[in-house]
Amino acid sequence: MVDAMIPLVPLAAADVADILTDLFVVLLAAKAGDELFKRIGQPSIVGEILAGVLIGPSVLGLVEPGEVLEVFAELGVVFLLFWVGLETRISDIREVGRTALLVGVLGVVLPFAGGVGLGAGLGEDGGTTVFLGAALVATSVGITSAVLIDLGVLGTRPSRTILGAAVIDDILAMIVLAVAVGIAGGEGTGAPQVGNEVTSILVVTALAAAFVAFFALGGTRLMQHRPQILKAPRFSESPLLPAVIVCLGLAAFAAQIGLAAIIGAFLAGMMVAETKEHHPIEDEVAPLYAFFPPFFFAFIGLELDLGELADAETLGLLALVTVVAAATKLAGAWLGARGMGGREALFVGVGMVPRGEVGIIVAGIGQTAGVIDEQLFAVIVGMSVATTLLAPPLLRSLRPATPG
Amino acid sequence: MVDAMIPLVPLAAADVADILTDLFVVLLAAKAGDELFKRIGQPSIVGEILAGVLIGPSVLGLVEPGEVLEVFAELGVVFLLFWVGLETRISDIREVGRTALLVGVLGVVLPFAGGVGLGAGLGEDGGTTVFLGAALVATSVGITSAVLIDLGVLGTRPSRTILGAAVIDDILAMIVLAVAVGIAGGEGTGAPQVGNEVTSILVVTALAAAFVAFFALGGTRLMQHRPQILKAPRFSESPLLPAVIVCLGLAAFAAQIGLAAIIGAFLAGMMVAETKEHHPIEDEVAPLYAFFPPFFFAFIGLELDLGELADAETLGLLALVTVVAAATKLAGAWLGARGMGGREALFVGVGMVPRGEVGIIVAGIGQTAGVIDEQLFAVIVGMSVATTLLAPPLLRSLRPATPG
Repeated sequence: MVDAMIPLVPLAAADVADILTDLFVVLLAAKAGDELFKRIGQPSIVGEILAGVLIGPSVLGLVEPGEVLEVFAELGVVFLLFWVGLETRISDIREVGRTALLVGVLGVVLPFAGGVGLGAGLGEDGGTTVFLGAALVATSVGITSAVLIDLGVLGTRPSRTILGAAVIDDILAMIVLAVAVGIAGGEGTGAPQVGNEVTSILVVTALAAAFVAFFALGGTRLMQHRPQILKAPRFSESPLLPAVIVCLGLAAFAAQIGLAAIIGAFLAGMMVAETKEHHPIEDEVAPLYAFFPPFFFAFIGLELDLGELADAETLGLLALVTVVAAATKLAGAWLGARGMGGREALFVGVGMVPRGEVGIIVAGIGQTAGVIDEQLFAVIVGMSVATTLLAPPLLRSLRPATPG
Repeated sequence: MVDAMIPLVPLAAADVADILTDLFVVLLAAKAGDELFKRIGQPSIVGEILAGVLIGPSVLGLVEPGEVLEVFAELGVVFLLFWVGLETRISDIREVGRTALLVGVLGVVLPFAGGVGLGAGLGEDGGTTVFLGAALVATSVGITSAVLIDLGVLGTRPSRTILGAAVIDDILAMIVLAVAVGIAGGEGTGAPQVGNEVTSILVVTALAAAFVAFFALGGTRLMQHRPQILKAPRFSESPLLPAVIVCLGLAAFAAQIGLAAIIGAFLAGMMVAETKEHHPIEDEVAPLYAFFPPFFFAFIGLELDLGELADAETLGLLALVTVVAAATKLAGAWLGARGMGGREALFVGVGMVPRGEVGIIVAGIGQTAGVIDEQLFAVIVGMSVATTLLAPPLLRSLRPATPG
């Protein structure tokens, strides 16, 4: 009964071997895609995403997207936004506050209306329609951030507007998703508990807004005045682990209250940035920022199932959803930013277009709630990947002048 | 039916939130334990392990050891041994080769005999007896390495002997474990396929030895002569990701052929070390070496279940097994190293004593095979933790003079 080879690689050890192999294959493929795309003058994250498609179930089938890879992908975008936060001063965001608010709000309202309109036009029922709206709402600031870093324009006004708008966008997206889940759940049970839902949504929205305000304002001020919290007599070595602990703590807290983890990571980065004169923290975070994010980009590609998109009807639906998603987000964000001037407003609009992992997460929730079927799931994932692949080359051609 | 709070933290997002929270709690606790133990003049890894005991199921129950934490723990010891490899030249190991071989062999034979003798004395059946022997065999070089780094003696002769012996030890431990699993499996089915087993074990042992020899000799030579493989025109940025890819690749390969992943990581570190004159690789690996290993040490503590050890009989058995495990390993390794002189041989002997994660893995395999019951599992885990906590203070007091 004992297979001749089995005893030598026992169960627990075999699991570890397979997971190490997956991590190795994903990192190798992402790095190869990155290098190749740099060489041909294309955005490296596009190369990493396509590498994920290549090694994933769609093409070679070397790697399946599983729980451990999902956690690495999540830490990838967490460390990416932590890095972006490290490069951002709260004063930069405050300066563009009004425009960012407008971009965030209009960039949510139009895509939601577009998604709901599209769902109604296709004759879907209420739950599915609202979910399609929700899936079109959220921006993946991770993708845009990586391109902004790549182009060296993170400090420019349009870039700061995108970052500020992304925070507003995520709070609104949380509300829209909560409403969508409530409606889908209510439909399923025939009992929409509207009163409870509204109260619960208001409470959690207030909590989320308070969290952002508290750490963005109070946290950054605290670090300005007490940078030694991260080092000095209390911590004997480098400030890296204390900084990473702040990052994981705020990311976990944001996720626990229903916000995206990356909002917490971004706030943590801005807090730690206030101590930069005192510690060489960026040099130490850089290797974590090099190691984790490739898992995030490759994972987006891993989740795409090209087989599901193979028939003409699905492809047509994908094209339609992608056009609506891109056009409404671009129009909404552009409207909000139009005071900045045409080219910069367009840059902001394009920067808000990628749906990345956020669209995929929303589609997954809709599938669990029973209102998104397999075809629509594949279409939303396809739209997320398509908007994510479209934006980087466009951003590159619209690249604003760097400050100073 | 829809709970008022559930919609706001949907399934996938809630999982991510919980895992981020676990990672945050483990890293915070480990760092706190580390800082506290440094302050009171004790080895910091002991503080990290005890922090794991504190937050784990034994005491506070804040964190359960799960798959994701296990992967982080594994990467912790992988990056730890990669770091040790970076600090080691293959010529250092070759110099102590003969002694290391003796230490490795005698440090396996005596503990195995001790475990089998103990099992027979306790009246256990054949499968259990052999497994007890296997559990007493393997050294956790991760624990000792961390202490050697901490003491600043990684470059000394006794330290290099320990590292070389650990490689031998792991190959022999793989054989012993394979035999034990074969016997346990054969007992279970009543059909020990001795012929197949022996062939299979010989093949895999030859493969393992060839793997180690190929990368230790050929790999390091390749890197000496072609350091640009990790950088220069082919890789545009830093050599970090190529180096990490080599590390993960060899770790995964070692694990796939039944060796410990850390053997592969150690060989990868030695290969990359040969390019050190050309790239500032250590500065870039240091943050990964700071981030991951605390998960390894804390995880050892998380796996300890003090509740299972609460009765006098079990405690007595734990004391007996721990004494046999420590005494036989110390005696075997000391015998092998006695040519180095009394104090240094004693240092080598103590350095081989910690069983760490390796004992726990073997116990888990025995439990799966049905020959290790709950009590004996808890005892072996307890022995692994006890030998791991014993060694660091002893090594500190025996600390050899640093070279040069």
